[in-house]
Amino acid sequence: MADISPDLFMDAVLAYQQTAAIKAALELDLFSEIGKGNGTSESLARTTGAAVRGIRILCDYLTARGHLEKQGDQYRLTQSTAAFLDRRSPSFMGSVVEYLAAPEMIDLFLDDPAAFVRNGGSIGLANNAPNHPIWVKFARAMGPSRGPLATKIASELADLSPRKVLDVAAGHGMFGIAIARTVAGAQVTAVDWEAVLSVARENADAAGVSGRYHTLGGSAFETEWGSGFDLVLLANFLHQLDRDGCVALLRKARASLAPGGRGVAIEFLLNEDRVTPRFSAMFAFQMLGSTPQGEAYTAREFEDIGREAGFASVIAKPLPPTPQSLILFEQA
Amino acid sequence: MADISPDLFMDAVLAYQQTAAIKAALELDLFSEIGKGNGTSESLARTTGAAVRGIRILCDYLTARGHLEKQGDQYRLTQSTAAFLDRRSPSFMGSVVEYLAAPEMIDLFLDDPAAFVRNGGSIGLANNAPNHPIWVKFARAMGPSRGPLATKIASELADLSPRKVLDVAAGHGMFGIAIARTVAGAQVTAVDWEAVLSVARENADAAGVSGRYHTLGGSAFETEWGSGFDLVLLANFLHQLDRDGCVALLRKARASLAPGGRGVAIEFLLNEDRVTPRFSAMFAFQMLGSTPQGEAYTAREFEDIGREAGFASVIAKPLPPTPQSLILFEQA
Repeated sequence: MADISPDLFMDAVLAYQQTAAIKAALELDLFSEIGKGNGTSESLARTTGAAVRGIRILCDYLTARGHLEKQGDQYRLTQSTAAFLDRRSPSFMGSVVEYLAAPEMIDLFLDDPAAFVRNGGSIGLANNAPNHPIWVKFARAMGPSRGPLATKIASELADLSPRKVLDVAAGHGMFGIAIARTVAGAQVTAVDWEAVLSVARENADAAGVSGRYHTLGGSAFETEWGSGFDLVLLANFLHQLDRDGCVALLRKARASLAPGGRGVAIEFLLNEDRVTPRFSAMFAFQMLGSTPQGEAYTAREFEDIGREAGFASVIAKPLPPTPQSLILFEQA
Repeated sequence: MADISPDLFMDAVLAYQQTAAIKAALELDLFSEIGKGNGTSESLARTTGAAVRGIRILCDYLTARGHLEKQGDQYRLTQSTAAFLDRRSPSFMGSVVEYLAAPEMIDLFLDDPAAFVRNGGSIGLANNAPNHPIWVKFARAMGPSRGPLATKIASELADLSPRKVLDVAAGHGMFGIAIARTVAGAQVTAVDWEAVLSVARENADAAGVSGRYHTLGGSAFETEWGSGFDLVLLANFLHQLDRDGCVALLRKARASLAPGGRGVAIEFLLNEDRVTPRFSAMFAFQMLGSTPQGEAYTAREFEDIGREAGFASVIAKPLPPTPQSLILFEQA
């Protein structure tokens, strides 16, 4: 009986306060200040311009939740916090809060949580609507920390020596751009809403590949993609669609491939139990609340989807330590 | 290096979705339905009127987060979920979401999280304003699950045979009511805003002690309490005040006690490190975001506060398995 406790429930009820604490800390750039050696509430209050009392209670909370360490009255970054939340770190990923915990995302989940469960999908954010401004926010917030994963994927794909690559629903464009950087001479065409493509073009400029970077504005479903591609990238896009949508998009991908070309998805794969890995089950719920028909799929489901779309084989490769997998859709 | 991971950060960024999931499940009364033996997405969709797809993804999420168990396509309650979230359980506490995750509480934390840290206290909810409707919500939401703790505390205090008890900022009134039930003949007077006292009176009626239950409407600080009390209860009230407010309120309590009478607080005590127990550190942050000056205190701080208010000794007693402690302020 000793392990019967309301703690897990209470933690979930109050979980929104975790989001608030991490957003407050990032806005105050608290982690960078601690990383610079400002270790006490007093010195942090001075450098962030916040009340000592507010900083003290926030830092104690962040310590209690494992984001900081505390010795006496000195706060220190954990190794993970130093790697990902200190703005001076090359692997800084704090900007993802600007999308993942954006006010409009939070509202989608907390305005009426039972409504999207009843409906079997979000009734809020029209993420299929042309040019929804959330996708510009997505591109700006998620792009900066995608570099390492994009480079890893590009090196996985470099063996295929793709010359002509299509990046569908490219967003920040980081995945296609990494291929352009890794594979000399590769030409990359990004498809997305025009406003989003301007972010991708900035990133291509910054990466020095804009001479081989092309864009096609419009809906992934309605745009004429062209043909002869060695790779059609579907990076974090299929999970926004239902099964039929995935099949339709993969058919379109197959039709635009050169002989021997491949469709390549980046996805959060669920195991057959659909509750592990935990991040994928969490991700499916994120899609339930924020898209009309999206969710997470299993490797077997993607295999079925790929075959229905006319591909001969489907190969899933985990991308540790990330929670994502690469899925290759291959022609006969 | 293997333990350097963004997982804890990502979990915090997305934590608001935990709150959404638990609110959705409670609103759909999902846990009671699973408790009745509706174990599949299909049967749960039928009984809750929700889409199968919504139920499946929600239940998988709740399983991934430890609130449910899953075998094949059958969901089951964990022991803790059965005890606290199945509406048919005598220890059901699901109604706390109506206050702790109420839209106005969530807004206080998520509208501008850095603002209350900068300010060193909430600038939103005017919880000291007369008759703020949030306190009626508090009383209705928190009362139903306070029974077991209130009974435990009443039995701790029964040895003192209090005849005249004052319950300050009584809210739902459950703590004073439990004393009235446990100590034959004890007269209890509750102080709170009039609208809140109507909830306390309903609870006193339901407990069969309304003949010995009296009310005094108004601010705890401004109301004339009277004198000759054997106990002045300050249940979950001091944490809403700053140190000076605690001293002032305890002085007022001492002045209204009979000789030998005691002040009795119920509180979330922090250890000297201020980051353990975790729930108390979390609670301090909850007070930072939702009150102008409240937080959590250590036993030593309450001892200092009590002495400054003129009490001779202060004794803290943990109330396991709850995260709360009983604090007795004793006269010479």
